[in-house]
Amino acid sequence: MALKREREQVLSDGRAAEVYRTAAQIILEKGYDATSVSDIAEALGITKAGLYHYIHGKTQLLFDIMQYGLGELDREVAEPAKKIADPEKRLRFMIGMHARIVTRGEGAVTILVDEARALTAAQNRKIIKRKRAYLDFLRATLNEMKGEGKLRDVDLTVAAFSLLGMINWLSRWYRADASLNEQQIAEAVVDIALNGLTRPEARGRRGLQAI
Amino acid sequence: MALKREREQVLSDGRAAEVYRTAAQIILEKGYDATSVSDIAEALGITKAGLYHYIHGKTQLLFDIMQYGLGELDREVAEPAKKIADPEKRLRFMIGMHARIVTRGEGAVTILVDEARALTAAQNRKIIKRKRAYLDFLRATLNEMKGEGKLRDVDLTVAAFSLLGMINWLSRWYRADASLNEQQIAEAVVDIALNGLTRPEARGRRGLQAI
Repeated sequence: MALKREREQVLSDGRAAEVYRTAAQIILEKGYDATSVSDIAEALGITKAGLYHYIHGKTQLLFDIMQYGLGELDREVAEPAKKIADPEKRLRFMIGMHARIVTRGEGAVTILVDEARALTAAQNRKIIKRKRAYLDFLRATLNEMKGEGKLRDVDLTVAAFSLLGMINWLSRWYRADASLNEQQIAEAVVDIALNGLTRPEARGRRGLQAI
Repeated sequence: MALKREREQVLSDGRAAEVYRTAAQIILEKGYDATSVSDIAEALGITKAGLYHYIHGKTQLLFDIMQYGLGELDREVAEPAKKIADPEKRLRFMIGMHARIVTRGEGAVTILVDEARALTAAQNRKIIKRKRAYLDFLRATLNEMKGEGKLRDVDLTVAAFSLLGMINWLSRWYRADASLNEQQIAEAVVDIALNGLTRPEARGRRGLQAI
């Protein structure tokens, strides 16, 4: 229990975010096998001993990066979203915030979250369970919108994965030097996604703005 | 020249498709380093010598699989699409056919096309060039629709990558045992994408059907 609390503290530390993002970028560039703990320490400009304050050895590192990525999603998207009663507002918030998380981290963490090959079976089950919980929440939000007559006649599973595809794919093409900044990209994705899924006559704020 | 022709023949051979798809699946499961040519031959039920009719050794295999995947996209999506004069019809065709290619191959080829790490710099340049050509064609199609007043006010780059994200992400979630078949999935993606991008009042056939 004390260990768990300590770990939560580490995860909410801004320096930990830098460690995980840097490690993710190096692993993506060099491949997991070719990356050493020294490579990561060097890129961060800290000692190996200093790095071990944040990581639990290389075999655990990939799993830690994934847990970090899914933790961000929980803390910054799912948890705040649960406080938004209106499902359309909630969906807009979720898509926009999720897109911003993906673009701000240069994408490496997001890409690694989908590379489950190097995990043990037990680690993989944990990752799949967390992803599934997020997907279920997203689909439940779409289902609420459907109940309010706001969705077009779309399959909710295809809709949920289409959203995740648009957002996760950002990690593979968006670079900070692009003509649009992170905020503009997030708004553009929200706009395309909401128009793709909702009935124009039942659309919320955006419909009013358009009038 | 004779070699090139022979190679084209091999690529259009149905058996070659099976070789590349099977090899892609094994590489995805085991990782590139851990996969041997014997593993692939065994999975296909052929001898190593027989397999070498289709592949050019393991170091070349990842590149060959990517070229095969991008070749499918050219032959089955881009080339036929170029014969469709109306840009909205062309876009519908491109999204639908691309989605079907991704789902029918169980996704492994599509996923590997985006794993450029194990390529040499020269191979990587070739792959990037082919992907860029496809992206440019997709964006040009969107731009034609814009010229006809059919697009909402969306950034064409975000729009093009949103489409690619929705489609490519299918490779990571769609399984043939799902409740929707490949055709239905393709139609659902076309439907969400077109509604996400086009102005309802300027929409083609679908708009008429809806009336």
